[in-house]
Amino acid sequence: MLKKIDHIGIAVSSLKKSIPVFQKLGLELKGVEEVPSQKVRVAFFQVGDVHIELLEPTSPESSIGKFLENRGEGLHHIAYETGDIEEEMALLKAANFELIDQEPREGAHGTKIFFLHPKSTNSVLTEICAHKETK
Amino acid sequence: MLKKIDHIGIAVSSLKKSIPVFQKLGLELKGVEEVPSQKVRVAFFQVGDVHIELLEPTSPESSIGKFLENRGEGLHHIAYETGDIEEEMALLKAANFELIDQEPREGAHGTKIFFLHPKSTNSVLTEICAHKETK
Repeated sequence: MLKKIDHIGIAVSSLKKSIPVFQKLGLELKGVEEVPSQKVRVAFFQVGDVHIELLEPTSPESSIGKFLENRGEGLHHIAYETGDIEEEMALLKAANFELIDQEPREGAHGTKIFFLHPKSTNSVLTEICAHKETK
Repeated sequence: MLKKIDHIGIAVSSLKKSIPVFQKLGLELKGVEEVPSQKVRVAFFQVGDVHIELLEPTSPESSIGKFLENRGEGLHHIAYETGDIEEEMALLKAANFELIDQEPREGAHGTKIFFLHPKSTNSVLTEICAHKETK
């Protein structure tokens, strides 16, 4: 079962330029992290119990790099939190969603994640994630 | 001060086709409403304390109609909730954000809203809203 929105991902060309924009908006910067497996640097902001993630590519070959090239900066994906990642994957497979990841994989902050293909989700790239401590 | 994400807006061609997709994902449909001033029909889903809003144009001349024509279906805007809409507008004006609305206007569900231009918000169309009952 999807419990809440975990985060909203936004593609940006430059964290250095974009971090101050979201700070001026009034969001609290919680940290910056590099995720080498995804070739991105991520800045996390918190608002309520949702994170806003700014995603800057470290390579033009990364999926964020290609997104920027095709669509430019802007909203990139929504991530929903679930309590049980294996159960959620089985449910969504059974509901005929097209999965990008066939098995849950490691995400940032020790999460387990998988993505649904936008083809099957109204063109919205959708991430499902579970935190280690099942809340 | 921005308190939380109020909703995420998603542009769709057809509520009839898209509502079942988000239901299959596991989200709870809360209602469907027409907003004639915006020339849209909106389906509301709830997940945690955030709404997902599917926006279907009732005219190709509406801003959602034009968005669909230019970009296709997908993520459209983020709305943040504030306690005091006038104060928030003054703060964001002072911070040099470009406002689409020069005064707060009526939104759905008796909210007061205004939009920031994506030019000044990293290409993310951004809505600020306040509910009548200031929480």
